[in-house]
Amino acid sequence: MKLDGVSSRTIWLEPDGWSIGIIDQTVLPHKLVRLRLATVEEAAHAIKSMQVRGAPLIGVTAAYGMALAMRNDPSDANLEQAVKFLGAQRPTAVNLRWALEELRAVLAPLPPRSRAEAAYARAGVLAEDDVETCRNIGVNGLQLIKEIAAKKGGRPVNVLTHCNAGWLACVDWGTATSPIYHAHDAGIPVHVWVDETRPRNQGAALTAFELLQHGVPHSLIADNAGGHFMQRGDVDLVIVGTDRVTADGDVANKIGTYLKALAAKDTGVPFYVALPYSTIDWRTEEGRDIPIEERGEDEVLRVQGKLANGDSGSVLIAAEGTRARNPAFDVTPARLVTGFITERGVCPASREGLLSLYPEKTSAAA
Amino acid sequence: MKLDGVSSRTIWLEPDGWSIGIIDQTVLPHKLVRLRLATVEEAAHAIKSMQVRGAPLIGVTAAYGMALAMRNDPSDANLEQAVKFLGAQRPTAVNLRWALEELRAVLAPLPPRSRAEAAYARAGVLAEDDVETCRNIGVNGLQLIKEIAAKKGGRPVNVLTHCNAGWLACVDWGTATSPIYHAHDAGIPVHVWVDETRPRNQGAALTAFELLQHGVPHSLIADNAGGHFMQRGDVDLVIVGTDRVTADGDVANKIGTYLKALAAKDTGVPFYVALPYSTIDWRTEEGRDIPIEERGEDEVLRVQGKLANGDSGSVLIAAEGTRARNPAFDVTPARLVTGFITERGVCPASREGLLSLYPEKTSAAA
Repeated sequence: MKLDGVSSRTIWLEPDGWSIGIIDQTVLPHKLVRLRLATVEEAAHAIKSMQVRGAPLIGVTAAYGMALAMRNDPSDANLEQAVKFLGAQRPTAVNLRWALEELRAVLAPLPPRSRAEAAYARAGVLAEDDVETCRNIGVNGLQLIKEIAAKKGGRPVNVLTHCNAGWLACVDWGTATSPIYHAHDAGIPVHVWVDETRPRNQGAALTAFELLQHGVPHSLIADNAGGHFMQRGDVDLVIVGTDRVTADGDVANKIGTYLKALAAKDTGVPFYVALPYSTIDWRTEEGRDIPIEERGEDEVLRVQGKLANGDSGSVLIAAEGTRARNPAFDVTPARLVTGFITERGVCPASREGLLSLYPEKTSAAA
Repeated sequence: MKLDGVSSRTIWLEPDGWSIGIIDQTVLPHKLVRLRLATVEEAAHAIKSMQVRGAPLIGVTAAYGMALAMRNDPSDANLEQAVKFLGAQRPTAVNLRWALEELRAVLAPLPPRSRAEAAYARAGVLAEDDVETCRNIGVNGLQLIKEIAAKKGGRPVNVLTHCNAGWLACVDWGTATSPIYHAHDAGIPVHVWVDETRPRNQGAALTAFELLQHGVPHSLIADNAGGHFMQRGDVDLVIVGTDRVTADGDVANKIGTYLKALAAKDTGVPFYVALPYSTIDWRTEEGRDIPIEERGEDEVLRVQGKLANGDSGSVLIAAEGTRARNPAFDVTPARLVTGFITERGVCPASREGLLSLYPEKTSAAA
């Protein structure tokens, strides 16, 4: 997607052919800073400090981190050391461990002199796979937007989204944003309602920034406002991402998603969830079985942003001594979801719907 | 209610018997500053600068402003001048104009030498009327909390509220908070989920502050989180205030109220609206006929609070150039409301329900 008018990815091989470029996401949206990673230590720091974030991007960064490690020292000892070191940076990130196991499996059987080249090649494949998955989600979701556009006589299709399921969390395109970018690039007029997504404001800081940079018309709104705009007929479609979809089609996503799904149901607005195959948890049947992370109260009590002097900072929004609770996700029951948009197509939010796209899972989910 | 452990009101006659005390609400919740108003100019400034806010409190402050004006110069000319001057401070506040007309009607027929005393007396009556109305809302709502408490075997009754329908907007007790304070003072264990209420954060800045000062257990939460806590069985009751209730029982309230009403309906949590008689708009039938104020985008783009150095300030949460939309209210359809709590009792959220409490309105609403 575009940054400063130039097509960009979140991670890339620099022109020197070996060092890795990333966007420092810790200073977004107020500054656009690109960083060069030249060592495995720098890749690890990028993951730990959240200069890169989002499950797919963390995985690809770790893979390139392995390539940097192998370039420096392709020994068996360093291979094991690098897997361990990179894997320790974000202990709960499943994609991180998955990518590292993938690299280890590819590299370990090879003679050390071949490992660096093989690591770069495999990291590149992981990156391209993510781009292709997200691109296909967009192609499939584009059909839904086209159908709505056909009824609107040239007026913009209004899409509401929550949190950031955008390209900054992936390598390119994003998941929930991919149909939007595809529609915009195809010349279909779209306008996006961007939930700010308290408490961490990923909608304000990341999704609005992405859309602004790519030139997609959008409006930032308080999380409270989406239901009102749906009541007034100002939302044609909701598309959100997800952190986990159960085999029965329940959807865990950023806190507040459930409220928008209720409003969409109440007002007759289609509510779609965009996801790659890797997000389906075939072993968990119902949303009630998903553990919900509860995060620190400071995220609620303080709001981060840019101060009047241009520095980053925060304000305390409640009296000293006020306590807060901070569940990070909620579960939207499948009955409130119109459908799923995956890299394979669009399906109803149900076990049968998912199996229609992933028939090879029939025995696993039986 | 209590401030610094002492029972307080939002406005009072000072011990000198003529000057007026208020709490400077512009510096809440980070500082507790009491101010003394000795002139009509100071009363006008308090209204304009929002040192006092909330419809009932603005009305009472204006009435005391008239008393200060009459104390200084009780002439016919000054009476008219004071009504005009005070009325111009918040042009859209209905309670402000209503209170000033009330004072004018009382004072104009009197000889000038009697006007100051009569103005103080009338202002006192307006204040006491508001306290009594809010107190009765609390007594009626207390019954609902008692019924729930009886089923909880000593565990706290969890009440969720949105925005600030608290005593800081009134003279004492508040509307939505009055049943909560009554329950707490009666020894019933209550815990309040306080929606922060973006974009202006009245829940974080005012409701949480009120509850902290009065000693009522509570937790501040992002507006996104209430539905999740309802799904998990952690909310027993929702009580919110309202800016306007139509004759058919639709409820205009702070943006985001509709989303909480949907979640309450979906999870079987009772959803009540607390209001005084003056909030019922008998001439408007349906919620769709209520105009919704749209406020400036800076309230969404910037968050106010206390900076690290203790000063008040704000942070920008989106990139420069991001645009926002900011509807201030939404409409919750009567079908989502379990009932109304008024100073006369509890009734269903319908025309029939309202008329059962206000039978004298039968012809007006027919």
